[in-house]
Amino acid sequence: MEGNRWQLVRRWCWRRLPVLHWLPTYDLKANLAADTVAGAMLSVHQVAQGLAFAVLSSVHPVFGLYGALFPPIIYAIFGMGRHVATAAFGITSLISAGAVERLVPPNASFTANSNSSVLGLSDFEMQRIGIATAVTFLGGIIQVAMFMLNAGSATLLLPEPVLSSMTTGAATNVVTSQVKYLLGIKMPYISGPLGTFYIYAYAFNNISSVRLEVLLFSLLSIVVLVVLKQLNEQFKEKIKVVIPVELVLMITTSVACYCADMENTYGLPVVGHIPEGIPPPQAPPMNALADVVIEGFGIAVVGYAASVMLAQGSAKKFNYYVDDNQELLAHGLSNVVSSFFFCIPNSAAMARTGLLYSCGAKTQVACLISCGFILVVIYTMGTLLYWLPMCVLASIIVVGLKGMLMQFCDLKKYWNVDKVDWVIWVLTYVVTISFAANVGLFFGVVFNIAVGVVRVTRAKTISLINMKEENCKIIEDVQHDSFQQVKIVSVTTPLFFMNAKKFKGDLMKMNKRNPAIIKLSEDTNEFEENILLNPVSNGVLNGEDFKSPPPSATRGILILDCSGMTFFDYTGVSILVQIYMDFKRNDVDVLFVHCLSSLIKALQHSGLKPEDHVFFDSVSIALDVICSSKACSKLSDQTEV
Amino acid sequence: MEGNRWQLVRRWCWRRLPVLHWLPTYDLKANLAADTVAGAMLSVHQVAQGLAFAVLSSVHPVFGLYGALFPPIIYAIFGMGRHVATAAFGITSLISAGAVERLVPPNASFTANSNSSVLGLSDFEMQRIGIATAVTFLGGIIQVAMFMLNAGSATLLLPEPVLSSMTTGAATNVVTSQVKYLLGIKMPYISGPLGTFYIYAYAFNNISSVRLEVLLFSLLSIVVLVVLKQLNEQFKEKIKVVIPVELVLMITTSVACYCADMENTYGLPVVGHIPEGIPPPQAPPMNALADVVIEGFGIAVVGYAASVMLAQGSAKKFNYYVDDNQELLAHGLSNVVSSFFFCIPNSAAMARTGLLYSCGAKTQVACLISCGFILVVIYTMGTLLYWLPMCVLASIIVVGLKGMLMQFCDLKKYWNVDKVDWVIWVLTYVVTISFAANVGLFFGVVFNIAVGVVRVTRAKTISLINMKEENCKIIEDVQHDSFQQVKIVSVTTPLFFMNAKKFKGDLMKMNKRNPAIIKLSEDTNEFEENILLNPVSNGVLNGEDFKSPPPSATRGILILDCSGMTFFDYTGVSILVQIYMDFKRNDVDVLFVHCLSSLIKALQHSGLKPEDHVFFDSVSIALDVICSSKACSKLSDQTEV
Repeated sequence: MEGNRWQLVRRWCWRRLPVLHWLPTYDLKANLAADTVAGAMLSVHQVAQGLAFAVLSSVHPVFGLYGALFPPIIYAIFGMGRHVATAAFGITSLISAGAVERLVPPNASFTANSNSSVLGLSDFEMQRIGIATAVTFLGGIIQVAMFMLNAGSATLLLPEPVLSSMTTGAATNVVTSQVKYLLGIKMPYISGPLGTFYIYAYAFNNISSVRLEVLLFSLLSIVVLVVLKQLNEQFKEKIKVVIPVELVLMITTSVACYCADMENTYGLPVVGHIPEGIPPPQAPPMNALADVVIEGFGIAVVGYAASVMLAQGSAKKFNYYVDDNQELLAHGLSNVVSSFFFCIPNSAAMARTGLLYSCGAKTQVACLISCGFILVVIYTMGTLLYWLPMCVLASIIVVGLKGMLMQFCDLKKYWNVDKVDWVIWVLTYVVTISFAANVGLFFGVVFNIAVGVVRVTRAKTISLINMKEENCKIIEDVQHDSFQQVKIVSVTTPLFFMNAKKFKGDLMKMNKRNPAIIKLSEDTNEFEENILLNPVSNGVLNGEDFKSPPPSATRGILILDCSGMTFFDYTGVSILVQIYMDFKRNDVDVLFVHCLSSLIKALQHSGLKPEDHVFFDSVSIALDVICSSKACSKLSDQTEV
Repeated sequence: MEGNRWQLVRRWCWRRLPVLHWLPTYDLKANLAADTVAGAMLSVHQVAQGLAFAVLSSVHPVFGLYGALFPPIIYAIFGMGRHVATAAFGITSLISAGAVERLVPPNASFTANSNSSVLGLSDFEMQRIGIATAVTFLGGIIQVAMFMLNAGSATLLLPEPVLSSMTTGAATNVVTSQVKYLLGIKMPYISGPLGTFYIYAYAFNNISSVRLEVLLFSLLSIVVLVVLKQLNEQFKEKIKVVIPVELVLMITTSVACYCADMENTYGLPVVGHIPEGIPPPQAPPMNALADVVIEGFGIAVVGYAASVMLAQGSAKKFNYYVDDNQELLAHGLSNVVSSFFFCIPNSAAMARTGLLYSCGAKTQVACLISCGFILVVIYTMGTLLYWLPMCVLASIIVVGLKGMLMQFCDLKKYWNVDKVDWVIWVLTYVVTISFAANVGLFFGVVFNIAVGVVRVTRAKTISLINMKEENCKIIEDVQHDSFQQVKIVSVTTPLFFMNAKKFKGDLMKMNKRNPAIIKLSEDTNEFEENILLNPVSNGVLNGEDFKSPPPSATRGILILDCSGMTFFDYTGVSILVQIYMDFKRNDVDVLFVHCLSSLIKALQHSGLKPEDHVFFDSVSIALDVICSSKACSKLSDQTEV
């Protein structure tokens, strides 16, 4: 009993702690060198982006450094992606900024110098990071709850067009939020519906207050970053090393800023004082949780959606397996735990994963090594970051989102492959930039499902079987005469409430196209679209070469091949029974072939009597029985299935 | 130009005014007698139910009589159902009662005798009917808007199990609301979530205040109604007449009540003063519309859902055609117009349609004739209704809902046919009785779609084609050897985001079942569920009698028959390309057969080069090409499609 429980615990750990798999089998010789180089490169990127995303989150930049330190450690224990560097991320930062700016607006009544005991930061900054950690905590809790509900399997509702569109839209929103830093204009925090457009409108109206020095600095940074990264990418093979472009840029601009004293001379905003060291852990303010529910859900879903895409991409590229649900647990726990260490919401990011690819990282050890470097930065280099201009950080953010913004090029692909997906992409993008990433994602998923449902309801439900090919042998045995009245129709789709009516309509229309229509009902007027039944006749060769058989008194036969009917519901069964009855009334026997045993049972419960002999194992058996019974002129001794 | 426009108007009228079809061709001789008898019977029923449903709507009983007069006239002009008697209806009355009780509660400060000029009714009563007409008006406007959006075609989202469950639940709610009249206890208006249960709890707690006379009266009425109606139904064929049970009951109980002066002696609540005549039309209070939006939507959707089911039932029974969207227009207009005549929300009702069936009504003329009788009642017999006991009205309501409550018996049917539909029925019922009809309907529809989506994602996606049957001729021409490596798989479903991943998994699993698995990747551990690819081998006879072919250096061939793939989206196409690439890497050529031309285009845009020669018109052509190329030992001269 005791041993049994121990076994269960062990099995659970084995399943839910991927670290137990990869760590013991880690090949030091093959991977460590590559991982160390990649880790060092990643740490530079993490420091720059950490500072930047913390500013984007409306909290003090130092918290971005913590956000690059703790989450990767938790993820390495629970996560399965090998190139997934979790840390602060543009889209989730933007969502949590909404909560921070709403609950702790900058003009709140704080005395400027009321320094709290933590790191020498003001109460105002501590209030703000408190809200951000509350969002982190709640988002993580929701992700863990989703893991418990096995929601990871619902990722099939997040297809590529929706994710691509949402991330592109969110990247647009992040770029928009950086406009004020790039242009150097003072702008209030603008959010809410159509916020993106209001920001551009505000910038346009205040075009005169643009600081040219700042704008130049930004443009220069962006150009340098883009060009150097591009060159780096192109000549990677030759020079065998990746230049730490961000690090170079940060050092040069900081030095330039310090030497020219730009902060005071030109009023160039700089990062300012970065405290050194890590404060003791502190629980996020639980009383704020109720106020950040919407943001929490946004973080949980959007962060997960963006992360799982990257994890799956890495798994596909390097041929290993990632469990969607396990990823939920990993990201949930890394959010929950890191929220106790003053971290803003974290998730995987495309730029970091791309960096790991191009630096040749092999495993998640690269992320752990980068954590080591970051720890060094936190304890030693805080003061060196003082002179880093904000506009350089903004440029790093914008260039970091290049990959996401480039997804615009996917539009051509979608247009060529499926115009409907193109429309979904465009609409989701518009909704995302007009509202927010979480609204856009929700819209995209719901709209996509709705489109899928409409497509299912409109899909082709039947196809006439080409008897010549299918039953080449049998057809020869039978005289032309007895086949005159047999039609074989294949049900190509499951029958359920979405398409059952269409199925009946299609079947009727197929008979209508038959030239030998006999009016059976006198109750017709122009208003009536009810299709009249008629004895079906030979459907040889896709119903094309009919020889308009004369209306005969013999009973017609319709064979329904149900092999494509992989499932059904009550509506589907009742439509089948209805068709059976309608055709029977009009002297057409309907035979069912290749039915699931559950379908046979359901049809019999719904009114088809077993003595009717309408179920057969295959088309050929049904045809044999028809032929033999035609010969005997009676149907009583059919081989029933 | 002018004539053209005239033509358009004429054509529109012809399409949208069914009265132009049925009235000129009305066969007086054949139908008038039957319709008159049915109309007379219907009018009795309409008067009784009209009074009852007005009370249920929390308005003065007289307004129920108007509600039985105006709507059928409008419906006869625009509607297509021949046995659809529109008037006040239990479920919609209960919804509008919610608005009335919320906005004009009984303890509002009205001086009891402040009679308004209309019909001598108090201001309080006029306020209440004002709210009810506002609900009617808004519900009608929403229905007309739905007509314009062509929402009638969305009725396929209202399958029978959902409608049956919602109406049963709503009928339960109506019966519950009549408990106070049946037991004769005074009870405050109880609504909101779990209201049904609170009402029973209240009645149980106040069991001592039940008036035994009232309870006896109710039980007697119910028993008499049920028994007489049952007898009527059974001996209809013999006695050729339908006894107006309600009329008999109303007259006897009124007389008894009057003679014994029960109102004063036993405190038996009676209907009271019913004013005679019809007041001049008056617009519903437009300022109340904003307050009744939820109820308006409830009326529009629930009323329509219940009505269209009955119209379709009549159409099916008497073999004529009903346009779902036209019904929306008819019900919408009958609500809008009648709201100007002090009418409570109206819709078709199962009890009335059943009555029309059993009285042998032929066309909608029966309803028009009943309007004539009701007009007579309104102008002459108001005072005679004074002594009608309320508990008798409640009994009439309860017995009138018998048909809906009997839908409980459908449960067995659903259980036998499809257990999932059974679950949907039960859950929708529980939600409906716990909350309200509109909530229940919404839940049912959404839950049903969700179940449908899940079923689609889990449906079988592929089937191995039995080559022996399919290609009996060709297979003989080919040596066993060259077929060793060919497998034909049929895609049985559209490929889109809901099932694309499953499709790939199924295809991989099908190969995994193959005994000759060759490990191609060394990166395997227990965690890995990624299925390894292997050269596919012969799938003859449903993959059962493999003879474990030795791993050979020759390329395998997988033929994908895409004839079942009736539509696709970007996700589906990219999965197909992925499969093509994965298999190619593992020395398996994938050929596509029976593709839609749009699919071929999409696949070529996604990376399949036209020079690969992978598209074929049919399986046999593909096999021919394979054989001939095997013979020549090269694939260069394939017949490409």
